[in-house]
This record gives sequence, C-alpha cells and structure tokens, in this order.
Amino acid sequence: MAGKVFFSVSMSLDGFVAPESLEELMGPQWMELHAWMFPLRFFRENLKFGESGEEGPDNDIARETFERTGVSVMGKRMFDAGEQMWPEEAPFHTPVFVVTHEKRDPWERPGGTTFHFVNDGIEAALDQARATAGDRDIRIAGGGVTIVQYLNAGLVDEFSIALSPLLFGAGVRLFEGVDASRVALELVRSEQWSRVTHLTYAAHRKARRRSTRISV
Amino acid sequence: MAGKVFFSVSMSLDGFVAPESLEELMGPQWMELHAWMFPLRFFRENLKFGESGEEGPDNDIARETFERTGVSVMGKRMFDAGEQMWPEEAPFHTPVFVVTHEKRDPWERPGGTTFHFVNDGIEAALDQARATAGDRDIRIAGGGVTIVQYLNAGLVDEFSIALSPLLFGAGVRLFEGVDASRVALELVRSEQWSRVTHLTYAAHRKARRRSTRISV
Repeated sequence: MAGKVFFSVSMSLDGFVAPESLEELMGPQWMELHAWMFPLRFFRENLKFGESGEEGPDNDIARETFERTGVSVMGKRMFDAGEQMWPEEAPFHTPVFVVTHEKRDPWERPGGTTFHFVNDGIEAALDQARATAGDRDIRIAGGGVTIVQYLNAGLVDEFSIALSPLLFGAGVRLFEGVDASRVALELVRSEQWSRVTHLTYAAHRKARRRSTRISV
Repeated sequence: MAGKVFFSVSMSLDGFVAPESLEELMGPQWMELHAWMFPLRFFRENLKFGESGEEGPDNDIARETFERTGVSVMGKRMFDAGEQMWPEEAPFHTPVFVVTHEKRDPWERPGGTTFHFVNDGIEAALDQARATAGDRDIRIAGGGVTIVQYLNAGLVDEFSIALSPLLFGAGVRLFEGVDASRVALELVRSEQWSRVTHLTYAAHRKARRRSTRISV
C-alpha cells in the first residue's frame, strides 16, 4: 500500500519559499530561510559534512521527513537549479521523478538517487512514484509551482511548513495560484522547538463553500 | 511611560488579512478567518451579544489583546469599512486615531470610543496616541497598508498573528510592500490551543543584511 503524498518546505512569514531569480537561489535570503537546518546533525550527515551537528527535536523532524520519503517528485525549475547545486551524491537517496517536457534517459547518481524524466504531466509522474514508493511516502519536493499544481489537483494528503521569522518582501510564493475554492486545510499539529514554527496540515478537497455565521 | 506599539491580526496561511473588495469584507472568507473568535466569551461580551461563550486560552488571548490596548490607530480604509459595520457602541472603548486626509471633528461613540482624525501622517498619529495611552499599549488596528507603513518606519515593537488553516488565494496581503531589508523579526512565542496558531514576534530595525554560511 502506497503511503501519503506530502510536501515539506521552509517558508518566510510573508509566504515566500525562494527568491525570484535562480541567480539568488543560494543567496542570503534563502540561506537565512533554511538556517535552522544547517547546524543539524542529520543535514550535515546527509550532505557528507561529517558526523557532527545538533541533535534534538528539529533534527528529529528533518530526519523523519527524509526517512518517510520513498520517492520524490519535482518540477523542472527545481531540477534545473539543483542540477547545478547538488553534490555528486545528490541528497535524495531514492528515485526522483522530474515533471518536464525534456526527454532524457534516467540519470543515476551515486548514493541511490536516480532522476527519471516524466513527459506526460503531474498525474503520470505521481502514478510512477506510487508504483515505486512501496509503503513509504511520496514527497512533492518542489518548487512552489509544482506543489500548487498537486495541491489544486487534490493530490496532496498533507504538508509541513517550517515557518521562519523572516520577511522576504519578494520572490516565489508557496501558495501563488492556489485554488482556494477547492483546497480545505486542517491543522494537524504545531511544534516550536527553536526559532522556526513547524506546522503540519492535512489537505482535503473542499466540497462546497462553507459559510460561518455569528449566532447572536 | 507609554507602552508598546503592536498589532494583532488573523491571517490566512497564504498571507491574507482581508478580501480584495470592501463589498466582500464581511463575506465567507473573512468570516472563516475570524471564526476562531466568534464563539469566545470575550468577543460576545464586547459586542453585547450576551454574557455567554467559550472561555479558555483563546478567550484569554482575545481579552488580553483588548485589555492591554490604551489607544488604537487605524487607516482610512479600515475606518471607512468599520463606520458602516460597527454597532453604535464601537468595540474599541478607547480613543482611536484615524490617519486620513479628511478633516473632521472627533466622533464620539457611546461606550468610550472616540475617533480622532489626524491629517499629518502616521508619525503624528502615533505621537498623539502615545500622549493618550498612559502606560497601556498602542494597537495599530489596521488595515494591512497602515500596518506595513508603521512596520517599515520601524515604529512597531511587536505583533501577534492568529494563523488560520485557511487559503484565500487573493485579497489584501498583510505584508504587501514590507521593506524586508529593514525589518528583522524575532519569534517571541507560538501557542496552539485550537485550530489557529498564535504567533508573537518582536520587530527590530535591521542594521545590515545578515548573511548565514554553512560551515563545513
């Protein structure tokens, strides 16, 4: 039985997940957004920085997000940016399905990451991911546009946001283009261990517009 | 000694505090955004709906926000909308300074709310508010544009957001136009008692662009 479809991102308080241009992608704003992760033992181990780093609840969250993931799905923009940035041993260690118009043979990296290029849309990519994930979960890795496509199609079961006390002012918004009339959210949990707030929501298809009334 | 300058709003997960048009202001999205408040005993008492309603931590937060407020400041858009909507006994019960180009005599309402119309900008309005607040705090009541003006001017000490598990998709964004290069945030606390997440941040003037590095 395949697991859940989820995404997990770090978001600024004003709703951004990345700077506007790919040139700034690893710039100071992005670095500050993800600064909570860099000291973590899991993060450093996964990128082969060594077996040192902070343990504790934030580290557990990062590790759990990784370990639950049987397969990842990502958009073309994220792949193109990552292809330039990831170390040779890309930090996924699972199959990764890339939604793209580019036809390309699978690209196998050392460490268990293989990128498969899917040319027939988000649902086909998810079908292939499901067939591969086993009983582990499927992570929609990003970017924002791809996440919103899956969200609007009703294909996301839940998601986590590491909300940073940070303002971007401009950039790529996580929820840009979301169809609010179709996506209902339910807060599953909120956890605060350091300067970021970890929020987990379940996503549902909205049956109809709900209206709330004040009863007097 | 005057107290802190703060704001306190309910925000959707995608960053909105109000619908785009004034016609929808009390529509279903706004109602759902504020739905956490409607059952509260404090809310119902303050609007004279009767002395019934839910007590508990959410109610304590709503009551504390009210009780700390010695004076409110608001923009013209919020006042114009409110003038149509508030009951005769407007729910502030303090002096309210309205930043506007309109020249108008103070407008006194039963129950202790008096609106004063200030024509010379946000700093002048805040000076008048400080002179009136005593040792209580000054609330920038809204709307979003006015809040961001005060934030960008470095005049906000702290703020609270009741983050709702809700997507607007469109509307008035809380942080639209914020100058991210000048405003630094620090998370003071995060509390979860019901379906909304109460986040409190301290705001500081950013001295310089911080850069974060991964040390390898």
